[in-house]
Amino acid sequence: MAKEITGMSEDYSQWYIDIVKKAGLADNSAVRGCMVIKPYGFAIWENMRDQLDRMFKETGHVNAYFPLFIPKSFLSREAAHVDGFAKECAVVTHHRLMNAPDGSGIIVDPDAKLEEELIVRPTSETIIWHTYKDWINSYRDLPLLINQWANVVRWEMRTRLFLRTAEFLWQEGHTAHATREEAITEARLMQKVYAQFAEEYMAMPVIQGYKTPNERFAGAEDTLTIEALMQDGKALQAGTSHFLGQNFAKAFDVKFLDEQNKESYVWATSWGVSTRLVGGLIMTHSDDDGLVLPPKLAPTKVVIVPIPKPAPEINDVAEKIMRALRSKGISVIYDTDDKKRPGFKFAEHELKGIPVRIGIGKRDLENNQVEIARRDTKEKTMQTLDNVEQYVQELLADIQQNLFNRALQYRTEHTTKVDNFADFQDVLDSKGGFIEAHWDGTTETELKIKELTKATIRCIPNDAVEEPGKCVFSGKDSSRRVLFARAY
Amino acid sequence: MAKEITGMSEDYSQWYIDIVKKAGLADNSAVRGCMVIKPYGFAIWENMRDQLDRMFKETGHVNAYFPLFIPKSFLSREAAHVDGFAKECAVVTHHRLMNAPDGSGIIVDPDAKLEEELIVRPTSETIIWHTYKDWINSYRDLPLLINQWANVVRWEMRTRLFLRTAEFLWQEGHTAHATREEAITEARLMQKVYAQFAEEYMAMPVIQGYKTPNERFAGAEDTLTIEALMQDGKALQAGTSHFLGQNFAKAFDVKFLDEQNKESYVWATSWGVSTRLVGGLIMTHSDDDGLVLPPKLAPTKVVIVPIPKPAPEINDVAEKIMRALRSKGISVIYDTDDKKRPGFKFAEHELKGIPVRIGIGKRDLENNQVEIARRDTKEKTMQTLDNVEQYVQELLADIQQNLFNRALQYRTEHTTKVDNFADFQDVLDSKGGFIEAHWDGTTETELKIKELTKATIRCIPNDAVEEPGKCVFSGKDSSRRVLFARAY
Repeated sequence: MAKEITGMSEDYSQWYIDIVKKAGLADNSAVRGCMVIKPYGFAIWENMRDQLDRMFKETGHVNAYFPLFIPKSFLSREAAHVDGFAKECAVVTHHRLMNAPDGSGIIVDPDAKLEEELIVRPTSETIIWHTYKDWINSYRDLPLLINQWANVVRWEMRTRLFLRTAEFLWQEGHTAHATREEAITEARLMQKVYAQFAEEYMAMPVIQGYKTPNERFAGAEDTLTIEALMQDGKALQAGTSHFLGQNFAKAFDVKFLDEQNKESYVWATSWGVSTRLVGGLIMTHSDDDGLVLPPKLAPTKVVIVPIPKPAPEINDVAEKIMRALRSKGISVIYDTDDKKRPGFKFAEHELKGIPVRIGIGKRDLENNQVEIARRDTKEKTMQTLDNVEQYVQELLADIQQNLFNRALQYRTEHTTKVDNFADFQDVLDSKGGFIEAHWDGTTETELKIKELTKATIRCIPNDAVEEPGKCVFSGKDSSRRVLFARAY
Repeated sequence: MAKEITGMSEDYSQWYIDIVKKAGLADNSAVRGCMVIKPYGFAIWENMRDQLDRMFKETGHVNAYFPLFIPKSFLSREAAHVDGFAKECAVVTHHRLMNAPDGSGIIVDPDAKLEEELIVRPTSETIIWHTYKDWINSYRDLPLLINQWANVVRWEMRTRLFLRTAEFLWQEGHTAHATREEAITEARLMQKVYAQFAEEYMAMPVIQGYKTPNERFAGAEDTLTIEALMQDGKALQAGTSHFLGQNFAKAFDVKFLDEQNKESYVWATSWGVSTRLVGGLIMTHSDDDGLVLPPKLAPTKVVIVPIPKPAPEINDVAEKIMRALRSKGISVIYDTDDKKRPGFKFAEHELKGIPVRIGIGKRDLENNQVEIARRDTKEKTMQTLDNVEQYVQELLADIQQNLFNRALQYRTEHTTKVDNFADFQDVLDSKGGFIEAHWDGTTETELKIKELTKATIRCIPNDAVEEPGKCVFSGKDSSRRVLFARAY
């Protein structure tokens, strides 16, 4: 199995696709740019979704569901938004099919043309703020802290499984607040929730920062982001949280009466993460043998393999270990297929990224031992049967931490301070990664750098320190470094 | 609040809409026929979904996700399917918008016409069986037991919140099997799972049966159904499970090699329930004071109301009760709003269908007592503080059971054996409900009865007994009674 995976150093792009397909995560579909998320890939997404959902609920949010379709006219209500989003969309123009009069098959019924075209939501600010107008009258209706799990469609021309697909799954939070400060606090809170999720569950270190005006969400006053670094030195925007000011409230006329009976426009945020995170997870940890999963998100945490095949005394021990692990909430499977050799199974389970493998052989059992292998480092140890579940539990925690540490170390080694443009280009081409450099604050410079190097400003880090310097491109004054990278 | 609800006996339809809207379950949207599911309605759906998802996984199913769009040509592959489904659909014809050259707004870019139109899935058999062709080669790939939670769109002309909407949420299971028998067993298993869910969680008794050829799903060889009776005497099809034979395997050329290396077409099932169940839940239990929810699906099981308003000694007791209930996994809220009188709050919580209300007043506390009211019967009792949580836990179980019993009694009283057509029409018009009558087995008779009375054959019950008789309409021979009703 594993040998069919293209080497990471040979062709990173193909390595990624090989892992996605051969580990059974997703596949292309008959519809251009849309993917099929296969059961194993979906199980990972479910684990992500369930944990995020818990975190959203713990911070006071509730779920709701808004229509898939948006009337075309809604998209033009918010001026900046239409420029950013109204272009590459799936447009519904008709509502009926019919049998072709000539018997050649089915055709679109020309009489069933919609009066106004409907857009398949690329994001839902417009339809949601249209709805909020009915829901918000007074300060007592605020804040509204609503999230939705949904599919969205953006007609991307160049797609890549999980990372950029025409249809993808995501959550979009849309909150409404009485004051500017409260909305800003909310946007920051959700950035922190995303960062916590990325680091504690995905074991993927992220930089928290905010976007330049040029990189902001269409319609936002401020876009907060979490940025991760992949193993090929390219950045991945992993989640964004937008402070929308009163832009959508004004576009959809959403006002409220405050306690003094004064009417004001409502303040808004929106924030989202998507199935793109699955792509980020893969590219943060996996290796040439296949997927590597952090235990907290792995659908199966432990696999037990009988060596060389099932036998009564081995099965008994396996059953006992499974009961013990399950009682601790650790998911485990027993691979009893007797048509495959152990070595073949090992490669399969490594490809799938199962964090821990327990091999049970008759000879080892005589010594009251089993072999335990960890997927991240591929180290194996012999453990006495007496404390297997305790050992496995600690090992899973250790793997989780090790994956984070390893990714953090990679990022540290691939974050470079650069002070002139020759070095900037050189670092990008030689080692890639994040570049900390001074920038003069203009969109003009930002775009020129992008044009010349394909690097963009990923963010201005929240913890950027004040440090006088000269822009790496224009030489003009700058007060702090920003984070550049080539990005997905 | 409650007094704004139209009486059930006055106008059942309006009563239903009043409950949906005033209890905050759902609302109409800006898009014709599409609803907004509000947080409280969505929380009920989440509880349903989570429980069903557990039951699906316990019976060996896994989740996956397939594209929202279906190429138009796919729909015409299965002849019966196209007739049943290909008509009222949302059709995507373009993939880009542009600014109108005259500056009048945004328009559909005429250059961005799709080569082949895409249909927003009304159900996913076609795209899924197209995919299964790539996944299934050998008997070792079978069975495939896959479910998907998704939104689907059917361009319904007359819509009603939850019961019939252009877009709705549902799950659709699509399984593939090596043998006819195994597929039939699967279809029956899922009918049982649905029935168990309806009865044990929704407290909604259902009749399990199978559809007449005329009422079958388009493309199915057999459609199994669960049918419930609403409080206005109309039936609701609450879930269906289809044995699809080899129809979709043949249409999409999905074959497998069996253990003898012989090639055969794969056998299929599909099965689904939708947000329509929320409508069924409302219409099974609710009353003129609002929503009535079975405790197992209620987002909030208990509400505590301080009488007349919060005070330190009341808060202390409330906190203690909340801790005790939460430790038993019972969701509870404490209504501390001091701007509303208790009577007003009572009406609000009744409207929302919260199963149990605990009123804590100072005078009662002096006697070490609180007042406990149950939503289903509106009975109140005084309980000593010492065993409140034990009492509440038992009360919740009792409410769950009572709601089921009450609905079962209603159904029993509204199920009538009828042996001539005059009685048939009379029963339908006077008391409604299910009618057990003989039918000659022809589609012709079935359609005539429908034309004359609007009643349809809901199902041939699984447990129908052999009983010779004469068709209630044609007088021809019949071997058992079938179940008629007017239906949603």
